Amino acid sequence: VVGLAAGAYASDDLVTMQKNAKEWVMPTGNYANWRYSTLDQINAGNVGKLQVAWTFSTGVLRGHEGGPLIIGNVMYVHTPFPNIVYALDLNDDNKILWKYEPKQDPDTIPVMCCDTVNRGVAYGDGKIFLYQADATLVALDAKTGKVDWSVSNGDPKIGETGTSAPMVVKDKVVVGISGGEFGVRGRLTAYDIKDGKMAWRAYSMGPDSDILMDPEKTTMLGKPVGKDSGLNTWEGDQWKIGGGTTWGWYSYDPELNLIYYGSGNPSTWNPSQRPGDNRWSMTIFARDADTGMAKWVYQMTPHDEWDYDGINEMVLADVTVDGKKHKALVHFDRNGFGYTLDRETGALLVAQKYDPKVNWATHVDMKTGRPQVVDKYSTDHNGEDVNTKGICPAALGTKDQQPSAYSPKTGLFYVPTNHVCMDYEPFRVAYTAGQPYVGATLSMYPPEGDKNMGNFIAWDASKGKIVWSLPERFSVWSGALATAGDVVFYGTLEGYLKAVDAKTGKELYKFKTPSGIIGNVTTYEHNGKQYIAVLSGVGGWAGIGLAAGLTDPNAGLGAVGGYAALANYTALGGQLTVFSLPN
Amino acid sequence: VVGLAAGAYASDDLVTMQKNAKEWVMPTGNYANWRYSTLDQINAGNVGKLQVAWTFSTGVLRGHEGGPLIIGNVMYVHTPFPNIVYALDLNDDNKILWKYEPKQDPDTIPVMCCDTVNRGVAYGDGKIFLYQADATLVALDAKTGKVDWSVSNGDPKIGETGTSAPMVVKDKVVVGISGGEFGVRGRLTAYDIKDGKMAWRAYSMGPDSDILMDPEKTTMLGKPVGKDSGLNTWEGDQWKIGGGTTWGWYSYDPELNLIYYGSGNPSTWNPSQRPGDNRWSMTIFARDADTGMAKWVYQMTPHDEWDYDGINEMVLADVTVDGKKHKALVHFDRNGFGYTLDRETGALLVAQKYDPKVNWATHVDMKTGRPQVVDKYSTDHNGEDVNTKGICPAALGTKDQQPSAYSPKTGLFYVPTNHVCMDYEPFRVAYTAGQPYVGATLSMYPPEGDKNMGNFIAWDASKGKIVWSLPERFSVWSGALATAGDVVFYGTLEGYLKAVDAKTGKELYKFKTPSGIIGNVTTYEHNGKQYIAVLSGVGGWAGIGLAAGLTDPNAGLGAVGGYAALANYTALGGQLTVFSLPN
Ligand SMILES: O=C(O)c1cc(C(=O)O)c2c(n1)C(=O)C(=O)c1cc(C(=O)O)[nH]c1-2
Ligand SMILES: O=C(O)c1cc(C(=O)O)c2c(n1)C(=O)C(=O)c1cc(C(=O)O)[nH]c1-2
Repeated sequence: VVGLAAGAYASDDLVTMQKNAKEWVMPTGNYANWRYSTLDQINAGNVGKLQVAWTFSTGVLRGHEGGPLIIGNVMYVHTPFPNIVYALDLNDDNKILWKYEPKQDPDTIPVMCCDTVNRGVAYGDGKIFLYQADATLVALDAKTGKVDWSVSNGDPKIGETGTSAPMVVKDKVVVGISGGEFGVRGRLTAYDIKDGKMAWRAYSMGPDSDILMDPEKTTMLGKPVGKDSGLNTWEGDQWKIGGGTTWGWYSYDPELNLIYYGSGNPSTWNPSQRPGDNRWSMTIFARDADTGMAKWVYQMTPHDEWDYDGINEMVLADVTVDGKKHKALVHFDRNGFGYTLDRETGALLVAQKYDPKVNWATHVDMKTGRPQVVDKYSTDHNGEDVNTKGICPAALGTKDQQPSAYSPKTGLFYVPTNHVCMDYEPFRVAYTAGQPYVGATLSMYPPEGDKNMGNFIAWDASKGKIVWSLPERFSVWSGALATAGDVVFYGTLEGYLKAVDAKTGKELYKFKTPSGIIGNVTTYEHNGKQYIAVLSGVGGWAGIGLAAGLTDPNAGLGAVGGYAALANYTALGGQLTVFSLPN
Repeated sequence: VVGLAAGAYASDDLVTMQKNAKEWVMPTGNYANWRYSTLDQINAGNVGKLQVAWTFSTGVLRGHEGGPLIIGNVMYVHTPFPNIVYALDLNDDNKILWKYEPKQDPDTIPVMCCDTVNRGVAYGDGKIFLYQADATLVALDAKTGKVDWSVSNGDPKIGETGTSAPMVVKDKVVVGISGGEFGVRGRLTAYDIKDGKMAWRAYSMGPDSDILMDPEKTTMLGKPVGKDSGLNTWEGDQWKIGGGTTWGWYSYDPELNLIYYGSGNPSTWNPSQRPGDNRWSMTIFARDADTGMAKWVYQMTPHDEWDYDGINEMVLADVTVDGKKHKALVHFDRNGFGYTLDRETGALLVAQKYDPKVNWATHVDMKTGRPQVVDKYSTDHNGEDVNTKGICPAALGTKDQQPSAYSPKTGLFYVPTNHVCMDYEPFRVAYTAGQPYVGATLSMYPPEGDKNMGNFIAWDASKGKIVWSLPERFSVWSGALATAGDVVFYGTLEGYLKAVDAKTGKELYKFKTPSGIIGNVTTYEHNGKQYIAVLSGVGGWAGIGLAAGLTDPNAGLGAVGGYAALANYTALGGQLTVFSLPN
């Protein structure tokens, strides 16, 4: 474990460490969210020979999102609630070096919207950062598992919870908040890595001073956002229970010193109850890492009517659009559009559907950045207590939290997607702290004429085009991994780990792991051998029926019915499976 | 699935089916409890190349005992409480054909002495028989999982539970009862396979009419047992709460038409409270399959003072002792003696220690069959409230429920053993229905000077000698499998599946499965390929600390302290791992 050199930032270490392909030092692989490894011992030619090298049961059931970190000779494995962290000794047959199990009030579970998931721990400054379900951020000594400091980042009593992976940036640890289905007011918060003191907090909505925006200097598509944009796009005090939570992935560009992330749906899901654009829900933010001040923003889905949270990962890569190379940000939004933006300026370069079945909007107006909504699929237009049918995608979007991967070798983005449509009936709902503030009844199903509820696609972000697409029986709820071996890995809800050719999408290998995969595939090298690791454990929103034992088709915010057939393929689990080539 | 021919017995089918090595039709492999397969595709020469073929998470944590059945192209997998049964389609990538989950009162869990285990389902007459924790025996249609009939075999409110695997014999299903730590009165019960009507019930103690003994015809070591032997070896009415439960394994000899099994400890664990031999606790029974009448009995540990339940499996094999070939019964008792008996007559042929550290008795008197107890280790002699130290083996015996295997090819018995000693302090306890009726405080540790808490041994039952012995860090709590490939398989509490040479004990293969193994290794063939299957999921008595989250060293009836280090190697799980050779 590399210590922190005096005067340097933890993130300087991480920038170095993430170049060492033997390790996997942050949940996203690197600050740019590539989920790419330069390791190529396992490659398109031999991946078919992959074997299970070892396995580890976490001792917890339900949805296992995220994946392990590998720092030096230690692997850190986390679990869903109760959020156990294990440190495994790769040098001693993966013996348990230490185990940390926080004490959390189980009353937190019912205020978690979409299973008891956790997307992983972060590393920096010799510490492991765990963001608990009860919104406590805790710093553990990476060597011993002892608590260094701990801070509360929210209150589960009012529906505030934690599911996202923290990110270490410079001398800070950045965390979001969950609870858009409970009227939680979203924010990103940075804590001092040394002692957990709050450094800055940036809300998604509210007065400029709360949302850390400068009416003149903060821009959207090149234009200043203007005064109190996070107030005057809401009726009355609705912004106080306005959602726009920040439960997804964060990226960081050390050169620009900007943090990128997206905000979630405005609360409630009943659009008639909250007129206005509801800024800055559904928005990509570029914020200064030191101060939290927003440099630019882009709201993808103004006045959301479908729960298309904008929190999916921002992948930072060089992309050439119309002959011009950009420091770009590529983002596959829940709303079904794949966006390419200039990440310095926030300019919108590409916005194209990454599932041809997307029907709620015809296209994105490249001038205003606004999607052109189709009345037929507008739940606001159709009104309260009207069941709008056949909207594609469903509320869980063409993609949800499952992160994509980017290969600088092929220049392609590999995107695990949902291929699901919905009926959506909004209804009036009153806010009560700590109670669901949803206001819509949903049901989900594959697009008409299709049987597959998912696709795994390769995407050209410069043109906004699907290069190849692999149908999957269920949504691909696992995160992808791309490698220099020209292999792309992903997991399926039935539990298969699959390896496909990065260029052609040809399936090269598959293995049935113990339970459905919603974890993110990881790779590392130890003693000269490359390993592929993935957590199994069905759950998340798509798997909530199995995870929480629900059977009413409309339960689980409408997901239970659509994914009912999953019960024919897998059962609850919680295991790490590690693969390698035979000796 | 072979149907039942008119007029024939289900067991006739099973006798035929168990000769088909492609299937694994009863938990014990065959009626003789061999756990042996004639399959030899996987053999001593190639087992080192074994790979994980597929895996399945059961969706349940805690101790997973037993193993799957394979009937035709269907695999039946059971779980600990809540005792789910899955039927997996081997022809369709192990898709779930059906799942049966009984509704059971969770109040049953606290009256299970040694984890929420279940040792497996039985098959016969086109049905799957599940013996639930709450002592309900249920018959499921093997094709659909629909309940055919269901019968209550006990009352958890008074501590009666079910953990053992039922056995189908002729037109009956035979089940035992657990609860020796709750003063339950042990019995074996046979139910009609067609409708679940009780056919006979044979208690372990009580009047002759209850224990199905003929004072003249039922013999012990060749002599009639005499009138009311199950009454007059107890003080007053103590036999009514006398234990002698029947929670282990059953064997059947179709030619002799005898069922063999053993009874457990007399209740309480405080020997001063129950003067007398306490017949027929701690006894091997040979009973007529049609009537339940006892042909012969042999009490191994009269007036138990150490909790040496006699329930371990009876392996039926031809064994030559002193030049004479016997239809023998070989039994590795908790008390540390390996017995060979003539199974027709009940004659005692061999009784030798199968762990040299056994010290509570010097030897077994071959005339009387009585162990010669060493005063120093006699908890009765030393008396109530005195801590008798250094007794070997500990209460969980030199072997517990983990079944041995027998290879007719090598003629050897392969025995997973415990290498553990104890301190034992009896105390006075009053009986209250449904409350623990234990009356002793225990602590456990390896024998002085040793670090290993287990050995895996090969045993010569004709001489009563260890042939080879492999030390293991923890007790080997998993059941063994021997094959015609001259390989013997077993699992370890850390989670390793190991394959060793049947002749030499040389380790040929090991793999770290997700969780500690207390399941029994199984083999089958499908589409021309041999598979090895084993359940992981740490627990049982040895793993109760992990399984139930206990940390007081004396908790878990004294097991928690001794096995505390297990937490450094594994965590709770519940997975099936299936192995095969590479293509
Ligand atoms: O609005 C929110 O605060 C919030 C939180 C979460 C979460 O923290 O898991 C999800 C969502 N929304 C959500 O909309 C959603 O689709 C979703 C899926 C998942 C998942 O882990 O499978 N979480 C969440
Ligand atoms: O006396 C009984 O009724 C009874 C029941 C059980 C059981 O049903 O699991 C065990 C025991 N005793 C027992 O003594 C024992 O060592 C034991 C170990 C285990 C196990 O599954 O690991 N069960 C039991």
